[in-house]
Amino acid sequence: MSFKLTVLGCGSAIPTLKSNPTSQLLNINERFLLIDCGEGTQVQLRKYKINFQRINHIFISHLHGDHYFGLIGLLTSMHLLGRNKDLHIYAHEQLKSIINLQLQASNTVLRFPLFFHDISLDSDEIIFENDSFSVENIILDHTINCSGFIFKEKKFKRKLKKNVIEKYNIPYNQIDAIKNGADWINNNGQIIKNSDITINDRLPYKYSFCTDTRFKNDICKKIKDSNLLYHEVTFSKDLKERADQTGHSTSFEAASIANRAGAKNLLIGHFSKRYKDTSILLEETKHKFTNTIKAESGLEIDFQDL
Amino acid sequence: MSFKLTVLGCGSAIPTLKSNPTSQLLNINERFLLIDCGEGTQVQLRKYKINFQRINHIFISHLHGDHYFGLIGLLTSMHLLGRNKDLHIYAHEQLKSIINLQLQASNTVLRFPLFFHDISLDSDEIIFENDSFSVENIILDHTINCSGFIFKEKKFKRKLKKNVIEKYNIPYNQIDAIKNGADWINNNGQIIKNSDITINDRLPYKYSFCTDTRFKNDICKKIKDSNLLYHEVTFSKDLKERADQTGHSTSFEAASIANRAGAKNLLIGHFSKRYKDTSILLEETKHKFTNTIKAESGLEIDFQDL
Repeated sequence: MSFKLTVLGCGSAIPTLKSNPTSQLLNINERFLLIDCGEGTQVQLRKYKINFQRINHIFISHLHGDHYFGLIGLLTSMHLLGRNKDLHIYAHEQLKSIINLQLQASNTVLRFPLFFHDISLDSDEIIFENDSFSVENIILDHTINCSGFIFKEKKFKRKLKKNVIEKYNIPYNQIDAIKNGADWINNNGQIIKNSDITINDRLPYKYSFCTDTRFKNDICKKIKDSNLLYHEVTFSKDLKERADQTGHSTSFEAASIANRAGAKNLLIGHFSKRYKDTSILLEETKHKFTNTIKAESGLEIDFQDL
Repeated sequence: MSFKLTVLGCGSAIPTLKSNPTSQLLNINERFLLIDCGEGTQVQLRKYKINFQRINHIFISHLHGDHYFGLIGLLTSMHLLGRNKDLHIYAHEQLKSIINLQLQASNTVLRFPLFFHDISLDSDEIIFENDSFSVENIILDHTINCSGFIFKEKKFKRKLKKNVIEKYNIPYNQIDAIKNGADWINNNGQIIKNSDITINDRLPYKYSFCTDTRFKNDICKKIKDSNLLYHEVTFSKDLKERADQTGHSTSFEAASIANRAGAKNLLIGHFSKRYKDTSILLEETKHKFTNTIKAESGLEIDFQDL
């Protein structure tokens, strides 16, 4: 089970030559999930050689342009390149009208089924789930409705030790029960303990994505024990007031959330354009939370390396 | 009077790492006019060091995404960077709803006055005019409503020859009449012919922008004698049928329009992604119309050099 994140863009508000607006690609066991889609995301996907037709689920945190202006272009390109498989978009309700109005204006009937899933404005809930992972929204505190997302693998089944099937004559139809933790009772009534014939796989990974938001203490419980927490750091610690006014966080606030939530690692991004050199934001955050990583376009994080 | 064109993007349909969708900046005597605005245009403007706050007029040919998906991002950036002066957009009617819906979704009230001017769907008309130039729409033949634009300088006043004011004792209040072609009758009743005291300034420039369109013969009269004609060449000459189906033109068709319209120079662009090397499109077009230039991002054309 692979679990890898690629940062496609992590700037705030205004795209520049050096800074792409927010977008990330999460690869969970070769399922490609796109998180936010600022202007230029489709070109960033090309840059990092990610086949965007493999994306089947897109999560949009909120309807500020630096988080979704690239979506209509991506959808149009998927269409023009002949996509025919389903695509699911998870976003606040109004995005559907925005996309549909633009498709209508260009007289475009998409070749592929497009499903919109409205994110709740007032409750945290599971918005996607399959056999191996789930995605939950968490309500953040920004200037407009804004959701974070928690991507969480499900508990893995145990793995059979080498050669135990032959050694204990375990029939095929019992394997699943044993992987789920059952002991094995052979034909002689002998009990073989599960721990003697199986080993634990790795623990499930958890990735929490939180942008844009003011410091919001009550998210800590939900994002608890994330292997990686992405939290915005738009401003340095001395601009707390500006952060509050604009619905953003400072370096110290992101570090505080990471500490309170027991995050194993913190990824910071969404840096204000005022910082020509963003290393000051990294330094400040690291001062309070050591395992901090600074996002940049093209950064790849394999969770097994964390 | 400067008259300069900068190509910001000239690809068709799908943006890639090498090809930006359609956008051009026309500088008429330091008035900046933006023509089309595909995704990524604001970053292209930065790349070519064009201060986008100096743009006061934006002309959008039609509502296919590769011609306007960058507009909402550009407007938002203008707003975030503190613009307060008027901006005028000339486009088909539905663009207004698209922009307003997105501004509403992000709870944005622009800091600057934004004026939408609907382009007529059924008649060619002057859509902008000031003392020195006019802009006219021309109805093209595409799969959806699409307009070309003709940018045309007004006739210049004549210039006074050196020292004639002193030589003939011409009073200040007569100068404008003389610049407009009047003779000068001095106090002795002597007639000084206008041609003895003035010279012609250069002839006015005319730039015609035609994309996306099938071969459309009846535009030739309108775009007649353009110093530069931009005409799309999406396909090579052997794909005439495909061009017709998709509402585009071939190399030979663009050359034919340039010849019939008596264009002095032809700029071609909007090349289909199928051409890894677009020089074949240039060669084909040049074969029928010698003064052909191939558009590429960053190309600058000063009309005085044509």
